Amino acid sequence: MTRYTVGILGATGLVGQRLVERLASHPWFAPAVLGASERSTGRPYGEVTRWMLSAAPPPEVARQTVVPCVPEHFAGCDLVLSGLDARVAREIEGTFARAGHAVVSNSSAFRMEEDVPLLVPEVNAAHLALLDGPRARGAGGFVVTNPNCSVTGLALALAPLHRAFGVRRVFVATMQALSGAGLEGPRGIEALDNVIPFIAGEEEKIEREIGKILGRVEQGRVQPAPAVVSAHCHRVATLDGHLEAVSVELEEPATPEEAVAALRAFRGETAGDALPSAPATPIVVRDEPDRPQTRLDRDTLGGMAVVVGRVRPCPLTTLRCVVLSHNTVRGAAGGTLLNAELLAARGLLRRRVPA
Amino acid sequence: MTRYTVGILGATGLVGQRLVERLASHPWFAPAVLGASERSTGRPYGEVTRWMLSAAPPPEVARQTVVPCVPEHFAGCDLVLSGLDARVAREIEGTFARAGHAVVSNSSAFRMEEDVPLLVPEVNAAHLALLDGPRARGAGGFVVTNPNCSVTGLALALAPLHRAFGVRRVFVATMQALSGAGLEGPRGIEALDNVIPFIAGEEEKIEREIGKILGRVEQGRVQPAPAVVSAHCHRVATLDGHLEAVSVELEEPATPEEAVAALRAFRGETAGDALPSAPATPIVVRDEPDRPQTRLDRDTLGGMAVVVGRVRPCPLTTLRCVVLSHNTVRGAAGGTLLNAELLAARGLLRRRVPA
Amino acid sequence: MTRYTVGILGATGLVGQRLVERLASHPWFAPAVLGASERSTGRPYGEVTRWMLSAAPPPEVARQTVVPCVPEHFAGCDLVLSGLDARVAREIEGTFARAGHAVVSNSSAFRMEEDVPLLVPEVNAAHLALLDGPRARGAGGFVVTNPNCSVTGLALALAPLHRAFGVRRVFVATMQALSGAGLEGPRGIEALDNVIPFIAGEEEKIEREIGKILGRVEQGRVQPAPAVVSAHCHRVATLDGHLEAVSVELEEPATPEEAVAALRAFRGETAGDALPSAPATPIVVRDEPDRPQTRLDRDTLGGMAVVVGRVRPCPLTTLRCVVLSHNTVRGAAGGTLLNAELLAARGLLRRRVPA
Amino acid sequence: MTRYTVGILGATGLVGQRLVERLASHPWFAPAVLGASERSTGRPYGEVTRWMLSAAPPPEVARQTVVPCVPEHFAGCDLVLSGLDARVAREIEGTFARAGHAVVSNSSAFRMEEDVPLLVPEVNAAHLALLDGPRARGAGGFVVTNPNCSVTGLALALAPLHRAFGVRRVFVATMQALSGAGLEGPRGIEALDNVIPFIAGEEEKIEREIGKILGRVEQGRVQPAPAVVSAHCHRVATLDGHLEAVSVELEEPATPEEAVAALRAFRGETAGDALPSAPATPIVVRDEPDRPQTRLDRDTLGGMAVVVGRVRPCPLTTLRCVVLSHNTVRGAAGGTLLNAELLAARGLLRRRVPA
Repeated sequence: MTRYTVGILGATGLVGQRLVERLASHPWFAPAVLGASERSTGRPYGEVTRWMLSAAPPPEVARQTVVPCVPEHFAGCDLVLSGLDARVAREIEGTFARAGHAVVSNSSAFRMEEDVPLLVPEVNAAHLALLDGPRARGAGGFVVTNPNCSVTGLALALAPLHRAFGVRRVFVATMQALSGAGLEGPRGIEALDNVIPFIAGEEEKIEREIGKILGRVEQGRVQPAPAVVSAHCHRVATLDGHLEAVSVELEEPATPEEAVAALRAFRGETAGDALPSAPATPIVVRDEPDRPQTRLDRDTLGGMAVVVGRVRPCPLTTLRCVVLSHNTVRGAAGGTLLNAELLAARGLLRRRVPA
Repeated sequence: MTRYTVGILGATGLVGQRLVERLASHPWFAPAVLGASERSTGRPYGEVTRWMLSAAPPPEVARQTVVPCVPEHFAGCDLVLSGLDARVAREIEGTFARAGHAVVSNSSAFRMEEDVPLLVPEVNAAHLALLDGPRARGAGGFVVTNPNCSVTGLALALAPLHRAFGVRRVFVATMQALSGAGLEGPRGIEALDNVIPFIAGEEEKIEREIGKILGRVEQGRVQPAPAVVSAHCHRVATLDGHLEAVSVELEEPATPEEAVAALRAFRGETAGDALPSAPATPIVVRDEPDRPQTRLDRDTLGGMAVVVGRVRPCPLTTLRCVVLSHNTVRGAAGGTLLNAELLAARGLLRRRVPA
Repeated sequence: MTRYTVGILGATGLVGQRLVERLASHPWFAPAVLGASERSTGRPYGEVTRWMLSAAPPPEVARQTVVPCVPEHFAGCDLVLSGLDARVAREIEGTFARAGHAVVSNSSAFRMEEDVPLLVPEVNAAHLALLDGPRARGAGGFVVTNPNCSVTGLALALAPLHRAFGVRRVFVATMQALSGAGLEGPRGIEALDNVIPFIAGEEEKIEREIGKILGRVEQGRVQPAPAVVSAHCHRVATLDGHLEAVSVELEEPATPEEAVAALRAFRGETAGDALPSAPATPIVVRDEPDRPQTRLDRDTLGGMAVVVGRVRPCPLTTLRCVVLSHNTVRGAAGGTLLNAELLAARGLLRRRVPA
Repeated sequence: MTRYTVGILGATGLVGQRLVERLASHPWFAPAVLGASERSTGRPYGEVTRWMLSAAPPPEVARQTVVPCVPEHFAGCDLVLSGLDARVAREIEGTFARAGHAVVSNSSAFRMEEDVPLLVPEVNAAHLALLDGPRARGAGGFVVTNPNCSVTGLALALAPLHRAFGVRRVFVATMQALSGAGLEGPRGIEALDNVIPFIAGEEEKIEREIGKILGRVEQGRVQPAPAVVSAHCHRVATLDGHLEAVSVELEEPATPEEAVAALRAFRGETAGDALPSAPATPIVVRDEPDRPQTRLDRDTLGGMAVVVGRVRPCPLTTLRCVVLSHNTVRGAAGGTLLNAELLAARGLLRRRVPA
């Protein structure tokens, strides 16, 4: 199969770097155009990027000239991935969609829009039905998004419980890694020997995105799940991996053993899609009393699986557990790419120039 | 006033070190005897102690010979402070109490015993009434304890809310400092870039100690408060300071503003005792959106105040907030010392040798 | 004595914050004017400052309006302390000196100028003689500087060795704290679990400043000491405290014991000045095999002493040792203030408005 | 080729874990016997091992029963790898060698023995000639060692310079990772926000091992290189990767460019051996001003390459640079395995039971 030609918006940021890294050897997608802000355009990607990953970018990518984030430079792209900051994403991604592009974004700008699927493929691939609606079809372009980096893992862990027992109420306290704040996150003197109990906008995102992801499409719209969520968000001194303490009240009674069985059995809506970035199982359950731990477990199944542990009774709800997922892999670039793969597998990517 | 003569059990451990540090210039208490395990006895304190605090121990203390933890060596002590490990505390502290000693302990061994006050002076000084009961009086000796390091701050923050509105249900997720695990805590390679979502026995301690502390003494026994608590405990890479995310369901409605007013007005049961270690106000409320932070705020009022911030509505309970307290000061040695001061102020310390 | 009226340039930065903190209860100096960049002027200090120290700024300082760094706003100041960034310091400090102000600066802008003393008071108070020269006298104003934060501790440790034995060659490898880079230092994701073996301009500063500091004033000019220095600079994940591994080749032979004796005996040129910020002894020598350690020892004597340990033979030079000093106290704000105190003690501050 | 049967001594320690990890898919070696101390024998490896690596041990290895470190249990092993602690290594490894085993050890016990090669294959594979000597031949068994974890990288970086220009004097200051201290290294409360300027025995090891490694075998003995080394060792808060600041005085003049050319051209004595663990090039030179950095570069070429950067003139010697190598990969388990591969490639492993 000829690979799809891919453009990246926000290629120099931390999510953009992870996208570049993961596209370096992708079987379906070939990176072709790298877009960034004015500060970087016209110069080689390797020079303008404050590269933070251990392996260097591929030399041919490092030599590539960065272009502005305008549709003219992406005319030949079958797919546009976006790692843009929320501040600029709304305008730029909107422009690309109106220009007929398939935009698969990590940003929060369009997540709650009625005609935009907020996708965790294993959980709600069915939400792609939103793209059948009139507005999206008009121009041929559309936007598909993945959730906030602290939401993806939680949504994955809740999905099998919701299907089997119904999720009614969720209390979640997050301990989020520094990389979640991108290249402009806390300074070392702010982060070391510290917990910062506040991340702007994060609690609100968790509280509203979970309902949409667990909801059902009815008559062309997402009917959100009635789960009520209370989120407490914290930045801790870890490099990667968002760990979350979760208490869940279910509609129907469930023992920890039944919950674990549901989590372990879960394969999700994409079991038959053979998506290249999909982990062998979306959820890995650990039995040890002190796992998952951020550093030891964040790379489970290439960082694409969510790891759940300490499933136990809760004095106030049905049960509680610990949830860990890799925030810049599953929770960002890897999630974005998995969404793009889903679009390809379901025939929703149009080739701009027939291969 | 002649100072009370004080012995320390477990003087070489991390809590023992903090006791030694704080007694160096105490107006009421004079340290006289330093007890530790067999490994250390017969040698100078300064040599056998793996000292972890920034200022060195006073030279005269460093030269003092460490003795075994048996009553014969503490005969002249009006007061015995204990920083012993829970594993050995039950036997040793019991022996001292039966020998007629006033034992003020930081360990968990006797906390839930019916005739042992589990004290946070501002909250439940009235629990000293337990010492009027028959068993304690028998030998003249008794044990008084302070709560687990992750409980003291939470109990202080809940107390004014409980008085004003009634506390029904509490979710708490802790982010606890490494010093809470003492000298044998996690190795550097376990702690760095990591969150460990498990501390043996900690969740159980929080869930049961809160009820006893907020309870009332009726007919010589503590009638626990009916608050139900669900605790999730985590070890994070901070040196000192336990930060806790808390959601509280109250019996009666309360706005965040009403809750803050109750917290700020709180002076507690010891307002008139003029205890040397008591902070000007037991609770400090911060208005900034991102405070308290562990490193910036743990030393508030000498580490003896609990700092509360982000008091705000909760979608699932009445309200939520962030609570921080210094675990080895207020949550351990400082709390132990405050209890001892309360005993002195209330005339419950007998001088072994009349001054 | 009426206190001198003091203005601060760059009051909102990390060094400025430490100056504000230390002036809060200074016996000789009263802070009166707070200057910062345009971004902050006209607004209360407490609002515009990203305050990073554990204790909050004094309320009356927090309420004070920040002014631009131009002499008109500092007319009533007897003394101007500068915590400015090097980028802007040259122009602003120069303007203040030409306007007749006594400027005591932490910045590197004027350190190597012929008529500017580069002071570590205990080492080279005699360099104040530079202020007798013609250019400085002209306007009545002048600039006095303290060395780079990684130089002060090294200069103090070398001074007694230089006096007693002559310092010929110095190899130094630094492990510098994050606070040394100020509020714009490395991000958490750059600092954690990392060593960055490069600090722009730092090695050059160490290599040239040591010679000037250890030099002698002859005929109105500093004749630099002939010591040759090779510096390797590293940023490590510590909050405060620059630790340095040092090998020294001396002109005359010296055993480690002789070196330790010289270090311990050192009181320096300001022994009779009774400067409020001066430590009881400028150098503290530790005998333990594993000290000084950054976190345990950086606050020795209020952070104003340099701590030296592991003085031992070197296979390649005369001897080697470990040197630690607190970079934002002794190495910055505390050093700046000590210089200002020296000026006051030596009668070099003119009162703008007679007291 | 049938794989060699391999036993591991000290299999539960940190180096043992890395050996188990790397043998899981080794083309030449099949792990068969896991030895550890009495505490662990008779129980499954997965239960007794405090596993610290991110990927879990292979299930079949986790199920394997741990045996005591006595030759009877290793009778079928063609090769014995040792990750033992130095305290017990001398006795146990000696026993195995006398029993006729080929022992390839990471421990320091035998490194300086006359008949024991201290190997960095690319540098001194020729030292295998020591095994031709009388004592080793006697029993058929022998011991081969790799250097201390802080020495391997330094020896590799010095080797090409020594060949081309002659190394006369070396200053080195190390910043060593916590994993270098094994499972019993510094506690979190000792490591965080700290530099510990002392590692017992480490400076002596560096100062004496470099000479042996760079030396030549003459008449059956190693004639050490005359390089004199001064080492300053520090433990810093990094997880893996020893970074070293190095100043080198050469016999013959060399510019930084000439040194870099020599480093880049170096392939070493094993260029033709096709060892499975050998990196494509043993040395990677970086041109950026701020590289290598511990976290970003320690995994270069699978952690088997040493990374050199900042090659520049030195005011006191010929030149200086920064050297980084992964201490538990290249500096321990990976180095041990590379030595074993060299023995196999050079025909020095005897099959106990003919394949």
